[in-house]
Amino acid sequence: MTEPLRIAIVGFGEIARRQHMPAIARTSRAALVAVADPVRSSPDLPHFRDLQALLRDGPEIDAVALCAPPQLRREQAAAALAARKHVLLEKPPGTAVSELAPLVAAAHAAGRTLFASWHSRFAPAVEPARTLLAGRNITKVAITWKEDVRVWHPGQAWIFEPGGFGVFDPGINALSILTRILCEPVFAKSAELIFPSNRAAPIAAELELSDQNGLPVHAAFDFRQTGPQTWEIHCETDTGPVALLKGGRQLRDGGRLIVDAEKEEYPALYRHFLALTADGRSDVDLAPLQLVADSFMLGRRHVVEAFED
Amino acid sequence: MTEPLRIAIVGFGEIARRQHMPAIARTSRAALVAVADPVRSSPDLPHFRDLQALLRDGPEIDAVALCAPPQLRREQAAAALAARKHVLLEKPPGTAVSELAPLVAAAHAAGRTLFASWHSRFAPAVEPARTLLAGRNITKVAITWKEDVRVWHPGQAWIFEPGGFGVFDPGINALSILTRILCEPVFAKSAELIFPSNRAAPIAAELELSDQNGLPVHAAFDFRQTGPQTWEIHCETDTGPVALLKGGRQLRDGGRLIVDAEKEEYPALYRHFLALTADGRSDVDLAPLQLVADSFMLGRRHVVEAFED
Repeated sequence: MTEPLRIAIVGFGEIARRQHMPAIARTSRAALVAVADPVRSSPDLPHFRDLQALLRDGPEIDAVALCAPPQLRREQAAAALAARKHVLLEKPPGTAVSELAPLVAAAHAAGRTLFASWHSRFAPAVEPARTLLAGRNITKVAITWKEDVRVWHPGQAWIFEPGGFGVFDPGINALSILTRILCEPVFAKSAELIFPSNRAAPIAAELELSDQNGLPVHAAFDFRQTGPQTWEIHCETDTGPVALLKGGRQLRDGGRLIVDAEKEEYPALYRHFLALTADGRSDVDLAPLQLVADSFMLGRRHVVEAFED
Repeated sequence: MTEPLRIAIVGFGEIARRQHMPAIARTSRAALVAVADPVRSSPDLPHFRDLQALLRDGPEIDAVALCAPPQLRREQAAAALAARKHVLLEKPPGTAVSELAPLVAAAHAAGRTLFASWHSRFAPAVEPARTLLAGRNITKVAITWKEDVRVWHPGQAWIFEPGGFGVFDPGINALSILTRILCEPVFAKSAELIFPSNRAAPIAAELELSDQNGLPVHAAFDFRQTGPQTWEIHCETDTGPVALLKGGRQLRDGGRLIVDAEKEEYPALYRHFLALTADGRSDVDLAPLQLVADSFMLGRRHVVEAFED
């Protein structure tokens, strides 16, 4: 019988408590054994103020799930890999594409797994969409990813700080799905970035992307949505429209709803992490983060009214 | 005897006339046979208004040197590779890192060379600096790259447009040298980006970079320099300071000036391009462009007074 993978969560905020903790609890051969966070703790688990204290004084662990804001991720990942722990990076995997290559090399040198996770890729309709579209000629893609930042990111000031990505924090989920369901790599052509006058990251963005065949891809991201929320990718194909709806929970082929399931992203994500650690592999796809970096580099900036949380 | 490589220049602005044309003239087995530009021409050469017209109506060519602003580069490169021409990209190689992978694939499929050139790497002191530093322990790097945009880029409005890079247009030259002379890959940690209120690209920037060993690298770029211009990289090492001065023309090891030569970057660059085409290889190092994209993504923006040319 295989021993369970002993995991510590570093950064015990919303995503850790709502998604990682229950997902680990539901994953066989995985056990949550400690938490590191400057403030928050879990009543049943050993608690440490940071990763260093955990590595020094904590129970034996095999892996860490890094769930703190992205600005802290690289240093934590480097320390964990130096201590020969497997590393799961929440998305986005960092604040710079260039910081990942040294981490990949460190994981390889330590014989440990580095997993730059993209939870939206584990939504139930994503793989069926990929399979369906592989047999079609796609002629146009339109992404609409609009959510209310006050509902989904209350009090998360870091999200509007440099390296916090602003509306690209949810928008990168759409890009992680897009780069999974299309066969050809896409690149950024132009971007409009909407910055509130009092914030360091965009609250909305419009991107034009393409592939080598000239496929037009338009993406509209907005954090100012109120009322119904929209997480949709619509593809026009030579045999009719294909739509991924509700953040990857539903798949429509023309008028037909062919997938409609609960999301359950994080249990699937942890099953993949376990498979990676068992096989001694890493999985670091930088394409979504690259598209964001490119959008910032070539984007036009617009300043709008201040945003107060 | 080998036939010369027949080259057309696309985009006949400053850099093409001052550097590419004389460099090709001085390169054996290379011949400039045509120019494509919406306005400018050369009295002795067939002239076409754009690459499409050149490919359709022009003389036989083997290669194109793409010297138009970066916003036009990807589409021109794709068209040239589709016509099975070797491609030399002026720096920066594009406005998005993500646009390069499809071009590399297209070059491979066409059996042609794609050369993302970094002219500053061909400055005479760069390779000696690389060799010298390979034997040292570097403890700190400071880059100062300050030039007067009115002197060096007169009337080049594109440089302050999205995708024009602003002060990163010269700054990326420093980054191309840095990523050549250091053994370890560097990544971006933070950036301050100074935007004039009336411009879409930064006029100055301060970057903090590092490598996996924690080497501190500071870079200061400024387009507002008047008087003496500064293009310097200073390294502190365990055996004293090493300095690359005058944009890579001079190398100092402590108090000793060990290289002091004319720049002659472009003839060396074309010799490398010829070697690549002869060997059927491509050379596309994206590290400098990646550092710029990362700096835009994680940088903090500051708005300063308007800049008038």
